[in-house]
Amino acid sequence: MKGTRADRRSFIKGSLIVAAGAVLHNAHGASAANVQERRAEPSKEPRLLFSVIGINHGHIHGQISAVTRGGGRLVSFYAKEPDLAADFAKRYPQARAARDEREILEDESVRLVLSAAIPEERAPLGVRVMRHGKDYMSDKPGITTLEQLAEVRRVQKETRRIYSIMYSERFESEATVRAGELVKAGAIGRVIQTVGLGPHRINNGRRDPWFYDRRRFGGIICDIGSHQADQFLFFTGSTRAEVVASQVGNVQHPQYPNFEDFGDMTMSGNGGTGYVRVDWFTPDGLPTWGDGRLFVLGTEGYIELRKYVNVATELKGGNHLYIVDRKQARYIDCNKVPLPFGPQFVRDVVERSAVAQDQEQALLAAELVLKAQTIATKPVGA
Amino acid sequence: MKGTRADRRSFIKGSLIVAAGAVLHNAHGASAANVQERRAEPSKEPRLLFSVIGINHGHIHGQISAVTRGGGRLVSFYAKEPDLAADFAKRYPQARAARDEREILEDESVRLVLSAAIPEERAPLGVRVMRHGKDYMSDKPGITTLEQLAEVRRVQKETRRIYSIMYSERFESEATVRAGELVKAGAIGRVIQTVGLGPHRINNGRRDPWFYDRRRFGGIICDIGSHQADQFLFFTGSTRAEVVASQVGNVQHPQYPNFEDFGDMTMSGNGGTGYVRVDWFTPDGLPTWGDGRLFVLGTEGYIELRKYVNVATELKGGNHLYIVDRKQARYIDCNKVPLPFGPQFVRDVVERSAVAQDQEQALLAAELVLKAQTIATKPVGA
Repeated sequence: MKGTRADRRSFIKGSLIVAAGAVLHNAHGASAANVQERRAEPSKEPRLLFSVIGINHGHIHGQISAVTRGGGRLVSFYAKEPDLAADFAKRYPQARAARDEREILEDESVRLVLSAAIPEERAPLGVRVMRHGKDYMSDKPGITTLEQLAEVRRVQKETRRIYSIMYSERFESEATVRAGELVKAGAIGRVIQTVGLGPHRINNGRRDPWFYDRRRFGGIICDIGSHQADQFLFFTGSTRAEVVASQVGNVQHPQYPNFEDFGDMTMSGNGGTGYVRVDWFTPDGLPTWGDGRLFVLGTEGYIELRKYVNVATELKGGNHLYIVDRKQARYIDCNKVPLPFGPQFVRDVVERSAVAQDQEQALLAAELVLKAQTIATKPVGA
Repeated sequence: MKGTRADRRSFIKGSLIVAAGAVLHNAHGASAANVQERRAEPSKEPRLLFSVIGINHGHIHGQISAVTRGGGRLVSFYAKEPDLAADFAKRYPQARAARDEREILEDESVRLVLSAAIPEERAPLGVRVMRHGKDYMSDKPGITTLEQLAEVRRVQKETRRIYSIMYSERFESEATVRAGELVKAGAIGRVIQTVGLGPHRINNGRRDPWFYDRRRFGGIICDIGSHQADQFLFFTGSTRAEVVASQVGNVQHPQYPNFEDFGDMTMSGNGGTGYVRVDWFTPDGLPTWGDGRLFVLGTEGYIELRKYVNVATELKGGNHLYIVDRKQARYIDCNKVPLPFGPQFVRDVVERSAVAQDQEQALLAAELVLKAQTIATKPVGA
């Protein structure tokens, strides 16, 4: 899925030069800039050099794609698993295979390290990266314990490096980006609440053992739910938030006793409230990996995103946005919405700005899901 | 009491002869029979005579319609508000206006009393009705305090009368009835969780003062959320359940200080878990009163109901069902699904059966929302 998306993105990149209609975006601040950024081919003079350490999840390709789109150049990588490293080398022949992690950490030309290591290894790696004076972007979940979180916060403040967590269901989702623009423009009034539903396909038989061990991925709310926690904070504009209640369980996978296949949580923040449900029960009859939804309830309207599929309609693919406001109900196809994250993030690294992702918000989202895992009750029968 | 029972027996004997359509129940479960029953005009020999006490909410018309469809005949009514009574009399010229409540309670020909009084008055009335040997059907919410609930349970057990609560978003919703049939047939495996979203239009300026006073309607989760609590119990098959957490608040209506415009709750039962969100924020641009949704997540598939509107599509009206199972994703228009509740309920009253509504389940749904109101936290800023 992510690979497909990356392919589509590079296709769009080439074709946008033709898309003169994009000038229309000028009426609307942010978008116009994004179109410019998106048109830019990776320049021969890259804006920064970056490396990858840890490639246990395919999300790494989306991360690389975003940073490359922003003008970064992948120069080296390290993976301790020879089979994963071999596949990666084929896909990115321009990247040098480092002998070990240290070779990358000590390479002063490298400004940024990306990782999609096994989740429990991401935060310790990020701490080492920041201590070597580099910025860091982790796949989500970026942190799997509250102890790791405390250490990340401490070292991040000490080193003033970026500890980014790639919440791709916001940053790399055109519909979510558009929803953010609409909410910011006041299209639905003040946001009251978000509901995020995150079903995923389990693909048993094609997952590594760590996938089924909650200690290694942090639990289902930590793993999948971190996307929805991030979107809750972003859409409600909350800078403080607490978990009201949470539940996790293993409803239907007794063969994996350390797995969690269902979780939910309610959050309350200073900007609104939020509910998240995540699960591994996407049925085979769905044409994609998950029918992810986001509902944003405002005082003057609401938005629903059908992020990856619009079940049993003629509207194929994802990025379906529905908005109802005081005047009307509308459908908006968001597939052509520019994705600002990659370019913004690269600029943040180079210019020491903080546009792409709010550092506190990224870590607060992690805190919420980690607390949710800690206090979660177990549904009967799970 | 003895005399009443004997009268009822001879009455039942007479009325059952008329209901020949009921024989179809033997061939093909509920549905075939229901079609017959739904087609049937109110017979000249009604299956039972019923009355109405309390008409403060328009839901009373749906209640009357369901019982009439089942073969009941409305014979009398009482409302303490002369203006409401006058309108009602015009709409139901066949119904005698009683001088007072007592005239109806003491009318031995009346087997059933319906009420859509102000919510806080419904349970005390129901207790009086049961104590007079009659069955009772309340609009939802059927009970507004835990003390009322205890009394209802006690008197219901003592008198063995029916205390029905008309959860119309299940009983009178074709899509929900169809979803129930699908779930019962195993179409999505074992149910894991339900999510019910219940937005409503507030229609300020067209509501009576009691509408804005939580003591009188029981609070937003008690009022609106009782529908979703009922559906949670029904779809998960839970016979025991607890509230995990709940929130209520007045986010945007400071002019009504005793109002609640937002609420949510998480429940956990012995058959699954459930989440409910209710609010009074339906925006004017929606062509109906609320974009009510129900998601039923199963181990082998899921169902989504768009109960009253399918936003920004060509599918007009309500009763839209989407189901994804192991093989495919499908849309089902449920508008022609028969509604069994009315006929089943009348038969329950006449034959002392319990098909239309499970008595314990009806009261457990009330218990859940009342407990949720009691323990609810307040979102920041609400």
